[in-house]
Amino acid sequence: MTIDLNCDMGESFGAWKMGHDSDIMPYIHSANIACGFHAGDPHTMRKTVADAIKHNVNIGAHPGFNDLIGFGRRNIPITPEQAYDLVVVQIGALAAVAKSQGAKLHHVKPHGALYNMSANNEGLATAIAQAVYDVDPSLILFTLANSKAVTIAQSLGLTVKQEVFADRSYQDDGMLTPRTQAGAMITEIEVSIQQVLHMVKDGFVIAQSGKKIPIQADTLCIHGDQAGALVFAQKIHSVLKQEGLIA
Amino acid sequence: MTIDLNCDMGESFGAWKMGHDSDIMPYIHSANIACGFHAGDPHTMRKTVADAIKHNVNIGAHPGFNDLIGFGRRNIPITPEQAYDLVVVQIGALAAVAKSQGAKLHHVKPHGALYNMSANNEGLATAIAQAVYDVDPSLILFTLANSKAVTIAQSLGLTVKQEVFADRSYQDDGMLTPRTQAGAMITEIEVSIQQVLHMVKDGFVIAQSGKKIPIQADTLCIHGDQAGALVFAQKIHSVLKQEGLIA
Amino acid sequence: MTIDLNCDMGESFGAWKMGHDSDIMPYIHSANIACGFHAGDPHTMRKTVADAIKHNVNIGAHPGFNDLIGFGRRNIPITPEQAYDLVVVQIGALAAVAKSQGAKLHHVKPHGALYNMSANNEGLATAIAQAVYDVDPSLILFTLANSKAVTIAQSLGLTVKQEVFADRSYQDDGMLTPRTQAGAMITEIEVSIQQVLHMVKDGFVIAQSGKKIPIQADTLCIHGDQAGALVFAQKIHSVLKQEGLIA
Amino acid sequence: MTIDLNCDMGESFGAWKMGHDSDIMPYIHSANIACGFHAGDPHTMRKTVADAIKHNVNIGAHPGFNDLIGFGRRNIPITPEQAYDLVVVQIGALAAVAKSQGAKLHHVKPHGALYNMSANNEGLATAIAQAVYDVDPSLILFTLANSKAVTIAQSLGLTVKQEVFADRSYQDDGMLTPRTQAGAMITEIEVSIQQVLHMVKDGFVIAQSGKKIPIQADTLCIHGDQAGALVFAQKIHSVLKQEGLIA
Repeated sequence: MTIDLNCDMGESFGAWKMGHDSDIMPYIHSANIACGFHAGDPHTMRKTVADAIKHNVNIGAHPGFNDLIGFGRRNIPITPEQAYDLVVVQIGALAAVAKSQGAKLHHVKPHGALYNMSANNEGLATAIAQAVYDVDPSLILFTLANSKAVTIAQSLGLTVKQEVFADRSYQDDGMLTPRTQAGAMITEIEVSIQQVLHMVKDGFVIAQSGKKIPIQADTLCIHGDQAGALVFAQKIHSVLKQEGLIA
Repeated sequence: MTIDLNCDMGESFGAWKMGHDSDIMPYIHSANIACGFHAGDPHTMRKTVADAIKHNVNIGAHPGFNDLIGFGRRNIPITPEQAYDLVVVQIGALAAVAKSQGAKLHHVKPHGALYNMSANNEGLATAIAQAVYDVDPSLILFTLANSKAVTIAQSLGLTVKQEVFADRSYQDDGMLTPRTQAGAMITEIEVSIQQVLHMVKDGFVIAQSGKKIPIQADTLCIHGDQAGALVFAQKIHSVLKQEGLIA
Repeated sequence: MTIDLNCDMGESFGAWKMGHDSDIMPYIHSANIACGFHAGDPHTMRKTVADAIKHNVNIGAHPGFNDLIGFGRRNIPITPEQAYDLVVVQIGALAAVAKSQGAKLHHVKPHGALYNMSANNEGLATAIAQAVYDVDPSLILFTLANSKAVTIAQSLGLTVKQEVFADRSYQDDGMLTPRTQAGAMITEIEVSIQQVLHMVKDGFVIAQSGKKIPIQADTLCIHGDQAGALVFAQKIHSVLKQEGLIA
Repeated sequence: MTIDLNCDMGESFGAWKMGHDSDIMPYIHSANIACGFHAGDPHTMRKTVADAIKHNVNIGAHPGFNDLIGFGRRNIPITPEQAYDLVVVQIGALAAVAKSQGAKLHHVKPHGALYNMSANNEGLATAIAQAVYDVDPSLILFTLANSKAVTIAQSLGLTVKQEVFADRSYQDDGMLTPRTQAGAMITEIEVSIQQVLHMVKDGFVIAQSGKKIPIQADTLCIHGDQAGALVFAQKIHSVLKQEGLIA
């Protein structure tokens, strides 16, 4: 009964810096590293992989849309075939960076709109899982807890880590409350931490309705580029360590 | 005593088509496939790899500058470290596309300005060879015959195929006559073919000065996007086959 | 009672060529020139404007999404504010190219997804019309006949040319039959031409249902990058000229 | 006898923020605003122009190479024709943003490698000056003091403001000491300020050799994205104001 802490990293681009990667590395287990499509570039990829190796953090590919100006956050309509192609090349690029440093890619977590659009879209979820499998069936897929993408990937033979969120409330169907709805964000750090502890220790989350919803919390998303990101990372890491929920 | 025919391929980008890849595939042995930086995109990479597999053509990565508008042909000043990073991610991307289709990457040929700038630049040539080696030491590097890049790559432990040109004249130092000089281009197809036969069978090329210059012709570059490209490919393939110089 | 023939032009990008601009120029009145966001580049913009001047063709800006890989054809969700910004800078860029050659911008026609998404979306249509007006209120807006964008732009004080299509069938609401529906495309050239003549001379189009739908055909879209584009351009130009429907 | 303070602005791109534009605006007279090629985007351009208007700061276009990943700082070989095209479209884009807000473009300052490469290159300097003139002959060109670009632009009929630097030392030929040489950078703020006062009041700069070199200091470049940028801006503004050297 443990949980992994993951964080999106390597999102700088050329002269533009983003995130506080080095500061947060000590408090996470898995880095989801941008692959140059929605963010990142070859130099940033190498530096971020080196930083992950130094901190003994799992190296993950974080493939996104080829939409730099939109940071991969815009819901661009794509076919499953296009999703497949995007994921294959981005995994490959980061895998090579890892290999060139004597390391190995550990996981894949789709980014932004690709993550959201595919979570419960059978065509996209299948294409993404298949892409991961076809490049390397030993890669672990990080995807939204309770989503269709979980079972789809498992049925293809992939190992899946179900991802949960500390700062988002949940609905009765096990999905996140859309950001457009009231109460979507959990702003109090203590409430966030309690939610995480419930999810890990008890296997459920209390939805907005008050209902207990089963959830498997394999990995927790830590945001890296927001105010207070580092403080939260330190806090949740410390609490989980105290509770014996992380290695 | 044989020679390989190689051609740059997969240079379409999104809605823009370039080259006559499928027409030329039957006449070549090795495809140098653009990796999305100077040309190509994930979809084109997949299609081109599939086409190469179908024609039993070697799959090669063709990494270039991240300079789409300049098609990777502009001499952008970069450091060896930047060259290393560019090559690693592009090899990785194409290797994954090959792997996802059950195939394996065979070789790497730098593109355009990256090829030209690195041929006799020790820092860049070393960085590129090291990048290839670090991603996969079994990959073959295609590089300019008689250039420093040949010996540099060999000294790192890479297998090198020295590349020669049918339509370019040579200088006494074994290098190509710069395009800015008179007589740089060989426009008569018969002269081109004779030059190739000399290089393969006799191990020398007759420089512009008339001097015989030793050259090792492991692979011949076939241009794919010019008028007459297909006709030349067919012709040279036919002559070399007749002479027993290709498999 | 005349109609204008317009065509999308200047869609080459760097080393990639697209369209047969120079061939089609003699048969059109208005060129919609890509502004470097979904297609085109500064060099292509200059060449295309020069070509339009040479053929005495109206110079129009053809602003699109900043989505080169998708050629501006993907429905990317954007806010009215983002649409406004996209249109302002693209009009400005092309207006400067025209000015530098002693010419003046004549019209603006949104491209691809921007055209389609805004035609009946009040927020986007208002933003685009306002952008055109704010840069230069004397510019003419080309937009889909019978769409909300027509009246919105007119109410802001812009002159509008309603655009019709020869190769698309219409619905009872005056809109184009979606491409996903049967009979959306008119493939017979004679049927296309009859539809155009009806629209110009009689002020109606016969919808798929057989019903006569009022339509104001100010300008006709000629496709420039498809097989048969030139032949159709010549044919429709010749017929309209014979009928005295173009200058 | 006054001097203008100018600063490069609007260099954010999409999700990536750069610079402290709003903080520095109160201390400068002229903003050089990125036009989306080396930095900036349509949204950032609008916001930055609005900010300049609010602070009564001159709105200038800051055209650069189409080299986002290199931030326009890499010396990419281009022809005068390509420089011309780059400058025309970027001026046009920003001029339209200004016009849409009821303002007018005031000046043009080439960015980074385009500025450096053209300063003493006759072909590039002529192309850039001609581009500015052809779009709007009333625009002021900001260019390196004592460079060939100054006289070239003046001979075409443009008004030129010669730009000087506070934190760079000068050579006997009136040019900046290359950054690769010792003593290129002036790190002490007091020395910087003395250099500026000399240039403005006395019309000379003391070169590294100790020689007095004539210089016309029309505008001073304030860096916006470095540590201490704001402090320096405040300090130099205050000193110049005290000395009656700015309005």
